[in-house]
Amino acid sequence: MDGCPPGLALSEADIQPWLDKRRPGTSRFTTQRQEPDQVRILSGVFDGKTTGTPISLMIENVDQRSKDYSEVAKAYRPGHADYAYDAKYGFRDYRGGGRSSARETAARVAAGSVARLVIAGVRIRAYLVEMGGDPIDRTLFDDTQIDANPFFCPDAAAASRWEALLDGARKSGSSLGAIIECVAEGVPAGWGAPLYAKLDSELASAMMSINAVKGIEIGDGFAAARLTGETNADPMRPGNDGNPVFLANHAGGVAGGISSGSRTSVETIDRDGEAADIMTRGRHDPCVGIRAAPVVEAMMALVLADQKLLHRAQVG
Amino acid sequence: MDGCPPGLALSEADIQPWLDKRRPGTSRFTTQRQEPDQVRILSGVFDGKTTGTPISLMIENVDQRSKDYSEVAKAYRPGHADYAYDAKYGFRDYRGGGRSSARETAARVAAGSVARLVIAGVRIRAYLVEMGGDPIDRTLFDDTQIDANPFFCPDAAAASRWEALLDGARKSGSSLGAIIECVAEGVPAGWGAPLYAKLDSELASAMMSINAVKGIEIGDGFAAARLTGETNADPMRPGNDGNPVFLANHAGGVAGGISSGSRTSVETIDRDGEAADIMTRGRHDPCVGIRAAPVVEAMMALVLADQKLLHRAQVG
Amino acid sequence: MDGCPPGLALSEADIQPWLDKRRPGTSRFTTQRQEPDQVRILSGVFDGKTTGTPISLMIENVDQRSKDYSEVAKAYRPGHADYAYDAKYGFRDYRGGGRSSARETAARVAAGSVARLVIAGVRIRAYLVEMGGDPIDRTLFDDTQIDANPFFCPDAAAASRWEALLDGARKSGSSLGAIIECVAEGVPAGWGAPLYAKLDSELASAMMSINAVKGIEIGDGFAAARLTGETNADPMRPGNDGNPVFLANHAGGVAGGISSGSRTSVETIDRDGEAADIMTRGRHDPCVGIRAAPVVEAMMALVLADQKLLHRAQVG
Amino acid sequence: MDGCPPGLALSEADIQPWLDKRRPGTSRFTTQRQEPDQVRILSGVFDGKTTGTPISLMIENVDQRSKDYSEVAKAYRPGHADYAYDAKYGFRDYRGGGRSSARETAARVAAGSVARLVIAGVRIRAYLVEMGGDPIDRTLFDDTQIDANPFFCPDAAAASRWEALLDGARKSGSSLGAIIECVAEGVPAGWGAPLYAKLDSELASAMMSINAVKGIEIGDGFAAARLTGETNADPMRPGNDGNPVFLANHAGGVAGGISSGSRTSVETIDRDGEAADIMTRGRHDPCVGIRAAPVVEAMMALVLADQKLLHRAQVG
Repeated sequence: MDGCPPGLALSEADIQPWLDKRRPGTSRFTTQRQEPDQVRILSGVFDGKTTGTPISLMIENVDQRSKDYSEVAKAYRPGHADYAYDAKYGFRDYRGGGRSSARETAARVAAGSVARLVIAGVRIRAYLVEMGGDPIDRTLFDDTQIDANPFFCPDAAAASRWEALLDGARKSGSSLGAIIECVAEGVPAGWGAPLYAKLDSELASAMMSINAVKGIEIGDGFAAARLTGETNADPMRPGNDGNPVFLANHAGGVAGGISSGSRTSVETIDRDGEAADIMTRGRHDPCVGIRAAPVVEAMMALVLADQKLLHRAQVG
Repeated sequence: MDGCPPGLALSEADIQPWLDKRRPGTSRFTTQRQEPDQVRILSGVFDGKTTGTPISLMIENVDQRSKDYSEVAKAYRPGHADYAYDAKYGFRDYRGGGRSSARETAARVAAGSVARLVIAGVRIRAYLVEMGGDPIDRTLFDDTQIDANPFFCPDAAAASRWEALLDGARKSGSSLGAIIECVAEGVPAGWGAPLYAKLDSELASAMMSINAVKGIEIGDGFAAARLTGETNADPMRPGNDGNPVFLANHAGGVAGGISSGSRTSVETIDRDGEAADIMTRGRHDPCVGIRAAPVVEAMMALVLADQKLLHRAQVG
Repeated sequence: MDGCPPGLALSEADIQPWLDKRRPGTSRFTTQRQEPDQVRILSGVFDGKTTGTPISLMIENVDQRSKDYSEVAKAYRPGHADYAYDAKYGFRDYRGGGRSSARETAARVAAGSVARLVIAGVRIRAYLVEMGGDPIDRTLFDDTQIDANPFFCPDAAAASRWEALLDGARKSGSSLGAIIECVAEGVPAGWGAPLYAKLDSELASAMMSINAVKGIEIGDGFAAARLTGETNADPMRPGNDGNPVFLANHAGGVAGGISSGSRTSVETIDRDGEAADIMTRGRHDPCVGIRAAPVVEAMMALVLADQKLLHRAQVG
Repeated sequence: MDGCPPGLALSEADIQPWLDKRRPGTSRFTTQRQEPDQVRILSGVFDGKTTGTPISLMIENVDQRSKDYSEVAKAYRPGHADYAYDAKYGFRDYRGGGRSSARETAARVAAGSVARLVIAGVRIRAYLVEMGGDPIDRTLFDDTQIDANPFFCPDAAAASRWEALLDGARKSGSSLGAIIECVAEGVPAGWGAPLYAKLDSELASAMMSINAVKGIEIGDGFAAARLTGETNADPMRPGNDGNPVFLANHAGGVAGGISSGSRTSVETIDRDGEAADIMTRGRHDPCVGIRAAPVVEAMMALVLADQKLLHRAQVG
């Protein structure tokens, strides 16, 4: 990570808890690959504080059983990048530890935990709002439930249903898609840019770079296409502190590419296209969306940290 | 535009037709602002061919009636960037000709027409598949209809319904959202990158940078969240030319961030949050999605042209 | 120009005087091409202040006599980019108005004048310290002389000698090289970066991008190669304000890539390799170094403005 | 390293020999710090070939005796970045292993060795042409001498003199500056760009980013300032293969920012400003220029590899 402000208190203990959330093998609902995902800080920290110079973080692979991937060398797995890699590069590293492995998201989570320090005061939360076509009930939304089940699910009843749903998929060798929602609260008005680095554009790019993500919405997203102009606009009234108070937030806290001070909300769909019959011996996730939630949070933090610094550069 | 390959035949006549498609005031369904949108090539072309040096294109504003915007100076329009600009920069250009004007998309369309020359052989088409909550009937899809109505609508029956729908919205001072689909055919396998400039990530960023866009899907997008792994995977069988033939395209022609050789499809939602009662005298679009279709095409062309050149840099 | 802070007072009158310094045809010692170099601000300014959105500046070419360049179409001029352009692009715009024309430096000067506003308080001065092998006498250095002769020469006696020298070169159809020194005073300590965007690296890149520049030194530069370590080091003693006072400045105000608070000094050599016998009818400069002085100042301002904003981004 | 073409044969054995040239402690003329500088390839290579995905190289620090740096914590060393770091970041890592350590150049050399594979056919050689004010005799230039003495000196007689010179400096606790010349042969015409990524600008930036470098010249550099236009121009005559043959190379193989097909030559001055009396117990180089020669070669290779790929992107 380059460009991190100096003087932020940082140790491995600030990073590890976020990695542990993403770590595989913590429940029967994620891949059984055993990876401790221990992070080491190699540079950029001195006397417990960031120095302003590049921060190098290292997470080693431990559980590498290359035999698992032997069939992959011979066949293109549908829904995987195998063929596309071959078409691009002329050959591919078929062992599964390469660039197309979801393991690379560990690096994102580690970096995201540093980005959180840069935007202290902003609270970021990602959770699943739908799995396998079964949505949560918004009236049952309970923030404290998110960490109380293996699905980052804010609706305890939905979490119970998903357990059965996913057990079924897992046993039949299938997999399920999920919709992840991520909300950032405390983002001040003014981050982002009018045109080519719009905050929503940066968020879309970041989320779509996560493996298996195929859709992204800001605020109401596609549902907004069905609203009339009057319904979709976010009315304001003057607030006590002189700043406007928004009476709705269809725009997801971003207007004209710039944060409005409302909470920024992003929804993303994560779904693997992996067919089960080809990849019988590999260890994979029956629902990649589960482990994607901490990654989505990390990408939100990284984008916001960049935008904070860019805003400070220009406006001071 | 910098980095354009040299030797491509280019004149204003290659650019103007695309601008004319986006031009306001061509039907009663778009803003009545009169802008000829005539493009001039200022640099980068010699003897009718691109020189390889930067291409500078100029489109002048003609129809500027600043009086129209006088109310805007005093109030924040809901659904607009007014407040966010003020919060960021401390003040704003309230005349409406600035960075938040949809007029900037003319530049994108002009640039996109040059990008099309760079990716000759790729066919790009954008059209509306839904307006105001009323979707097209896919069984009535007719490619030749797209340019035969003012809505870029491939379903003649839907186009008729939309005419009434939009007349209603226009008369009541409201506005409607739309869903635009964009398909690129002829994209060779291998464009894009595994991680930080994934083709889908670049497309998401480009589309989300268009004014009023709030959602983006690649391939099946959010619908994929409801499919099982077997259904969602795109099976292949060996083709006659040695390359695989894909039997489905849920992934929208992008696997692991790299084009697979299937057609690349993107869906995007465009919807203005403008409430009618504030902005009575301004000239605005009752459905911004209509004029967004040529812009979406342009952004697709620009992203693909970049990716083609990046791929050529690395792989030759 | 993108990224300029908002709220800076800016009009054409802030830019034009700098352009006038670089303008051709103001004395017999520069090309006789007549260009008014009038700048127009097309965007990014409202109510006399920068808005924070991109500033577009326009300077039109007026004096274009393309006949002058007819011979050039048929031959490669030694010391010019003709052959290299052909080798790169397959053909070239031989009319002389293209990318290899020194006219592009007008844009740099215009942009530099805006950059000066960003770094208000920093004083930048460039002047010639040698022409055609004849150096100034440093003991005769007089700041007020710089604008009092057509050579930006701080030594009145040298200016007289150069007049004769350059008249001779001009009449024989030859040309002379020059060494330009540029000093920035008031640069606070802390701008720059330790490694890949070192302040000296950025300055070298910027200066070397000016046409006909072939060498660059920071501080003592090549002369430092002949000093011992003790002589070359810049000793410090504690100053009254707690900050160190430097007793020497061999390093040109940059230590480890970061400004030290001493004055930043750069020396650069500007020399055209144009042979006279080929290009008899073109209008060119007998000493390109003269008109390069305002360009060198502009590039210094642009680099420092960037570094100021980058520093503010990271450190606040 | 990102963007490396796929399919290049690469193993640690391709990198290590270049690192060994830069390695400290190989003669009494460099720092006595003992670092094996063993490189490991962590990613980006499969079956002995580059995969096209990022190549991660690791060189661990072994000989860290932090006690050596205890005095540094308390004082600003003249000629070092100590004060500038403190001014920028508010504090600094005084142990000497940080960003301002010359050890970071090991990474450049490692990366440069990969870049050499990208530009196979280009031959790069750097050597010292002057030390402590004592230049080589160009008539005694012998390519085979460069690796036959500890100074990368192509003149055996000069190498003998420098031995005595440097012993003297070392014993008195002083240090000497050096001038390094780097020549690339086999660069095809056409690499580089007309304006903002001129080949000479990129080279200047790269060389000036090496620690203690304070000056850079392309071709004749500052000496060109003393030549007349006729002398300085590089005449061409038609060659047997249709391409021009250059009869001189004052411009260092770069015309208008683009390589001309002549050999590219760069000269750079490397000199540490370290005063001996402050840093008595640290281990440092009596002439940093010696170990800089392999670094200069590496930076030349890296710039040329980038330019090759950029050229291929645009022109194919």
